[in-house]
Amino acid sequence: MNYVIIDDIIKNALLEDKVHDDITTESITSLDSKAEIDLISKENGKICGLNVFSRVFEILGDVDINFIKKEGELVRKGEIIAKLTGCTRVLLSGERVALNLLQRMSGIATAAYEASEILKEYGIKIFDTRKTTPGLRYLEKYSVLTGGGFNHRFDLSDMAMVKDNHILAAGSIKKAVELIRTIHPFIKKIEVETESLEQVKEAIEAKADIIMLDNMEDELLKECINYINGRAIIEVSGNMDEKRLQNLKKFKIDYVSMGKLTHSVKALDISMKNLKILK
Amino acid sequence: MNYVIIDDIIKNALLEDKVHDDITTESITSLDSKAEIDLISKENGKICGLNVFSRVFEILGDVDINFIKKEGELVRKGEIIAKLTGCTRVLLSGERVALNLLQRMSGIATAAYEASEILKEYGIKIFDTRKTTPGLRYLEKYSVLTGGGFNHRFDLSDMAMVKDNHILAAGSIKKAVELIRTIHPFIKKIEVETESLEQVKEAIEAKADIIMLDNMEDELLKECINYINGRAIIEVSGNMDEKRLQNLKKFKIDYVSMGKLTHSVKALDISMKNLKILK
Amino acid sequence: MNYVIIDDIIKNALLEDKVHDDITTESITSLDSKAEIDLISKENGKICGLNVFSRVFEILGDVDINFIKKEGELVRKGEIIAKLTGCTRVLLSGERVALNLLQRMSGIATAAYEASEILKEYGIKIFDTRKTTPGLRYLEKYSVLTGGGFNHRFDLSDMAMVKDNHILAAGSIKKAVELIRTIHPFIKKIEVETESLEQVKEAIEAKADIIMLDNMEDELLKECINYINGRAIIEVSGNMDEKRLQNLKKFKIDYVSMGKLTHSVKALDISMKNLKILK
Amino acid sequence: MNYVIIDDIIKNALLEDKVHDDITTESITSLDSKAEIDLISKENGKICGLNVFSRVFEILGDVDINFIKKEGELVRKGEIIAKLTGCTRVLLSGERVALNLLQRMSGIATAAYEASEILKEYGIKIFDTRKTTPGLRYLEKYSVLTGGGFNHRFDLSDMAMVKDNHILAAGSIKKAVELIRTIHPFIKKIEVETESLEQVKEAIEAKADIIMLDNMEDELLKECINYINGRAIIEVSGNMDEKRLQNLKKFKIDYVSMGKLTHSVKALDISMKNLKILK
Amino acid sequence: MNYVIIDDIIKNALLEDKVHDDITTESITSLDSKAEIDLISKENGKICGLNVFSRVFEILGDVDINFIKKEGELVRKGEIIAKLTGCTRVLLSGERVALNLLQRMSGIATAAYEASEILKEYGIKIFDTRKTTPGLRYLEKYSVLTGGGFNHRFDLSDMAMVKDNHILAAGSIKKAVELIRTIHPFIKKIEVETESLEQVKEAIEAKADIIMLDNMEDELLKECINYINGRAIIEVSGNMDEKRLQNLKKFKIDYVSMGKLTHSVKALDISMKNLKILK
Amino acid sequence: MNYVIIDDIIKNALLEDKVHDDITTESITSLDSKAEIDLISKENGKICGLNVFSRVFEILGDVDINFIKKEGELVRKGEIIAKLTGCTRVLLSGERVALNLLQRMSGIATAAYEASEILKEYGIKIFDTRKTTPGLRYLEKYSVLTGGGFNHRFDLSDMAMVKDNHILAAGSIKKAVELIRTIHPFIKKIEVETESLEQVKEAIEAKADIIMLDNMEDELLKECINYINGRAIIEVSGNMDEKRLQNLKKFKIDYVSMGKLTHSVKALDISMKNLKILK
Repeated sequence: MNYVIIDDIIKNALLEDKVHDDITTESITSLDSKAEIDLISKENGKICGLNVFSRVFEILGDVDINFIKKEGELVRKGEIIAKLTGCTRVLLSGERVALNLLQRMSGIATAAYEASEILKEYGIKIFDTRKTTPGLRYLEKYSVLTGGGFNHRFDLSDMAMVKDNHILAAGSIKKAVELIRTIHPFIKKIEVETESLEQVKEAIEAKADIIMLDNMEDELLKECINYINGRAIIEVSGNMDEKRLQNLKKFKIDYVSMGKLTHSVKALDISMKNLKILK
Repeated sequence: MNYVIIDDIIKNALLEDKVHDDITTESITSLDSKAEIDLISKENGKICGLNVFSRVFEILGDVDINFIKKEGELVRKGEIIAKLTGCTRVLLSGERVALNLLQRMSGIATAAYEASEILKEYGIKIFDTRKTTPGLRYLEKYSVLTGGGFNHRFDLSDMAMVKDNHILAAGSIKKAVELIRTIHPFIKKIEVETESLEQVKEAIEAKADIIMLDNMEDELLKECINYINGRAIIEVSGNMDEKRLQNLKKFKIDYVSMGKLTHSVKALDISMKNLKILK
Repeated sequence: MNYVIIDDIIKNALLEDKVHDDITTESITSLDSKAEIDLISKENGKICGLNVFSRVFEILGDVDINFIKKEGELVRKGEIIAKLTGCTRVLLSGERVALNLLQRMSGIATAAYEASEILKEYGIKIFDTRKTTPGLRYLEKYSVLTGGGFNHRFDLSDMAMVKDNHILAAGSIKKAVELIRTIHPFIKKIEVETESLEQVKEAIEAKADIIMLDNMEDELLKECINYINGRAIIEVSGNMDEKRLQNLKKFKIDYVSMGKLTHSVKALDISMKNLKILK
Repeated sequence: MNYVIIDDIIKNALLEDKVHDDITTESITSLDSKAEIDLISKENGKICGLNVFSRVFEILGDVDINFIKKEGELVRKGEIIAKLTGCTRVLLSGERVALNLLQRMSGIATAAYEASEILKEYGIKIFDTRKTTPGLRYLEKYSVLTGGGFNHRFDLSDMAMVKDNHILAAGSIKKAVELIRTIHPFIKKIEVETESLEQVKEAIEAKADIIMLDNMEDELLKECINYINGRAIIEVSGNMDEKRLQNLKKFKIDYVSMGKLTHSVKALDISMKNLKILK
Repeated sequence: MNYVIIDDIIKNALLEDKVHDDITTESITSLDSKAEIDLISKENGKICGLNVFSRVFEILGDVDINFIKKEGELVRKGEIIAKLTGCTRVLLSGERVALNLLQRMSGIATAAYEASEILKEYGIKIFDTRKTTPGLRYLEKYSVLTGGGFNHRFDLSDMAMVKDNHILAAGSIKKAVELIRTIHPFIKKIEVETESLEQVKEAIEAKADIIMLDNMEDELLKECINYINGRAIIEVSGNMDEKRLQNLKKFKIDYVSMGKLTHSVKALDISMKNLKILK
Repeated sequence: MNYVIIDDIIKNALLEDKVHDDITTESITSLDSKAEIDLISKENGKICGLNVFSRVFEILGDVDINFIKKEGELVRKGEIIAKLTGCTRVLLSGERVALNLLQRMSGIATAAYEASEILKEYGIKIFDTRKTTPGLRYLEKYSVLTGGGFNHRFDLSDMAMVKDNHILAAGSIKKAVELIRTIHPFIKKIEVETESLEQVKEAIEAKADIIMLDNMEDELLKECINYINGRAIIEVSGNMDEKRLQNLKKFKIDYVSMGKLTHSVKALDISMKNLKILK
């Protein structure tokens, strides 16, 4: 992970929090005070975003971090993730922004991990979507990957995806796919979102690379999978929860996409505790 | 809500999604195609962010929006929130960014509303925290307000807040509050986070404006509230869920702060459906 | 083409040229002077970038443009492309930035057009590369498309491309492709750059989606094409000039990529002439 | 050359290329892999932009560069310009952006050098124009200087230049020059573009500091030069090619301006080859 | 003082001054020339902004600074503040931007110091306002603090302030304060600007935290102070000069706000002298 | 004056003041409230910056301004400059930023006007310097021009200026000027700062375009002017006040530069008064 894109996100967050005008910390601590503090997980989960966390303090300066846990490692409630030593002001003023990023990224990684574990042995992969937080898509997709999930297209440019409204706009799936192939003949894959067997048939005929079976009942799902029969990659989607994921084990599909991985993140509870003033 | 701060967030999100290079939509639709489409809620909730939603399309251009629901109104599953008419390309390419913002803001407003309703008749208010998504704090705090909650301090500069680590750094609550008052004698309020009756006593002695009772059991909570006895505003915090909120009804406190309102958002399910090509 | 990405490029260019401090024009013309002026092509070519050209004047304000030629149309030396009417200051101060963009984009479109025409009837397409001008990739790739060429991958993220150095890093083509497929199993296509029949064989075995035959002599090229025999899309590359393009007619390949389309642009000669002061 | 202005150009280019999401390189190489690689010229030319090239890798981090050639040095086909050692990922992911800048700058320096060499012994200098690539003017003008050319005005503010349209707007050359002198009496030089002997006479009368003889045939050129007779600096312009430059040797002029130096750049062919994995 | 917010101000100022194209210095000095130079105060005053001054050279690179004076120290005419050693080009090109910031900040600190000294022993504090230079508010408020003054609210968000126009808009002071308390019940203090005893009475009744007595004659001032009698903090304002400050000694007030501290800055005369070339 | 450069300054200032979170105004006024208000000068002076003032409200939206005074007009204490009608919230929230810019610009114009008036009839012009406020140079130099002064070089790139330290670095004035002419032979003027007759002689010999006589006593000044005798433009500088300006009347010089015009601005007292709610 390089820092060109991350630095802008972090600097923006630090300015948003007015880290340069922390009236509490600046009143209480002297400029040359040094301290150490622990980064502790208060929940079980998959830790993600250690580079981003440390980069916050690199940008603010004068803090050393000794990581005890590694990126992508599972942590248990109460475990120490890292020990930080450095300028007391920087430790206290940078804490919130650093945690806001780390908790969110770890929350996403944890959710991606949990979903992946359910379907892993069945060869079914978990994918993210474009339902990400504005401004944080790169970090969020990275977190999905770290958690054991996989990345669907990053943006509107790197793959074509024919959804219900596109079908309505083009007139038919066939028409839509043809129009895309005319302008982007080789480089981009084309996925078609379907809601019925008829649409699946149309998509197969149009030679879609990937077919999404959206919000289908088990019966229909089975029928569509049988019809496709290896002629396209199969993605299943539609408001996934644990029960639904368990149910999908029995189907021969390639991947399941989950919007909630990024649109409804549950932050992992992590905090900085046990400040010790060194001088 | 003015647009200076919002426009940067929106433009950044549109670039992130490469709205200028939507290979699907640009292949399928002609430049002069017009369409109409419905914005529909697929869940009950409090709608929030209509200005931001419409500003996305204003920035992209050539779309008219007729809002049927108002900012802050309760919507029910299946209800139409707005009808959009305009350039088909803009409708399809801008959809995801507009929804990502609207769904997140409405999710926050809905959660703030639900929490507020529980404690409203007891005169207890719900507050947000600084545990917000980096880059979106303004929108998220606005959403809490729209949902019926209230805003705690925006950033490190607009109020002093003495937390556990600050107490450790200063040596005592008294010392910390004094140091802050020396530099910021009048303008800024000072809140002290406490975990025991001793700390509450110290905070009262230091004349803290607001005392936060953090993660206390009922017994201790009661003792502290009795001790304070109107001499400071009382904020209660610590991993709030519905049960805990219900339990707080019986206490005479001023407000309850909930980090999860913004750090663990559940997006409201809203989508754009029923595209009709007009020409 | 929407304006979110274009506006930043244009504003940056206007500031770079200090359009707000044009000491010549501001000294000579009064604030309320109006004029008309012609946009004329001084060379044959394919016109591209009319939206960008007009957006420069929209940003500066107070100019109307009547386009006589359409985006992508062929123009001949001496033909009028557009007639502009408006604030004399804006016309004169904005001229250079508007032309710098229009001339470059039209130059690219013209080159892409000329190359495409040579191979068109043989079903071979012309592709661009990532050898673009820093900061202008989107405009340059759009110009290639407008000229009749096609777009290869936009950036390092939207397709995998295994080049010579990647093969050295991974150990073998097979290893490289496998590693990519492990992390990006479905969404991204994989192209392999080859310089020998052995490499082509390895790429086919690895199931590369696209095989680039780089800098090959006719004999070897033929051999490789025969070997591939439809099992992958074929891209030919390596310092293309007209003669080389003519020579490629006889091969059964899918596309030819040309770095020079964007790394060695020849601007189309266009100028603004015949200023008439209206008041 | 300091980095304030360069860093923005480089960071923008790296984001444009999504260097943080290089799916090929990140799949293939481990984070701690180290390698060395050669920077090789595949053409004769003048090397320019080594600082910019190295800054790309400084920004990405963890690469050492040993330059064998110096800024402004002539290189021959096949010569090694530099040897790079460092993080394999950075070497591979940063390559394209670094080369795009270096090749363009070296292409400009080479063209400026070749043109300068033709006229050098006759005391005639080569000047650039404002026909530069939007966003890269500083780098392009620096490249002209490095190649042995000279810089004309940087932008609309640092010199006054009365062109055909300005003469039309002001009514006459005399009027235009007077108006400029009224507001900018001492600091800024004034150049007048002329197309006839009459205009030259007017410009001399108006005491223009520099007179541009634009697109004149030899006969007229001679007449104008004789008339000026040292009373102003003489610039000759108008679609310069080698033949035209050769022809200008015989005239007593000060400088020749060439738009094509920057509006029609031919990139110098340079590449990174011979990757060796060190660990 | 951390650098996130400062760096943007400095980089912007360096670009504004085109430090990357200093045609004088770059012509005169070689890249590897080293020199030393003194930073000297040419006036008595309070030095402020040393961090900002040194950060300019840190950003440009290759300069060491040995500070003889400390932040906030009083300096006398002719005293050396610092000795700089490093790259001659950087010393000469960065001088103006570094001094522009240092002189302005020291000018503000000096004025704040002088005003504070007058009222210090009477327990009256000097406050700044929001009448700051656009873009430099943080540096200017920091300078006031360094000079011995205190900071009023930073922006429109961190305290409520009911001015004359707000009273007109709300209908009455009471109404205004009530409306603010409804939405921001606890976190934000509320100040009311008054011009008469009636308004003061209304403000007291509305329980304003702070009451500003604006532009009042001594008689009225006294009456209002007596009426308030400790029930609110008292701020006095209105075109303060030394005479007026002297006059306020006799009143029992808390603070005096002075717009001129930041809206009418007198730069402290500081310069860089005695360049010695080292090699 | 176009808006590309101004808009960034204004938006930055609006964000700095958190105009989007004006807790006072937003609590007090409803979204659809309309009002009118007067812009009044509370001092005599030269009004400057009306475009910038109105642009603040254009960016915020929904306000009409009827200007009674024109740009550059003299206003007297108590006179109405403009009448504003529009959204009450925008009027109240935008007031401070709009005034901060207008007051500063008018203050500079007024000072430039007053200085110019003293020397005008003697044919001596007032010039500004680069001692401007970081980020606001363009607005400040525009204000000097509006006030009747003239602009010296804008930045380090648009003219060469040999100061004391440059002379020390180059070894001599002659050497310095020669080096500059080698690289920038025609386009840029060269000014030399002198402190003695010897230096003036050297500067004349080096054919400096402009000679600055810095901090000279009358006697020396006279000697230098006589020596120059029309062979270069003469600029006089050094801590100008009214007395010194009066004294310069008797000398035959071209211009006087005054750093204080921009480094020690006294804001013109202007305010928005008499709010009337319309609905």
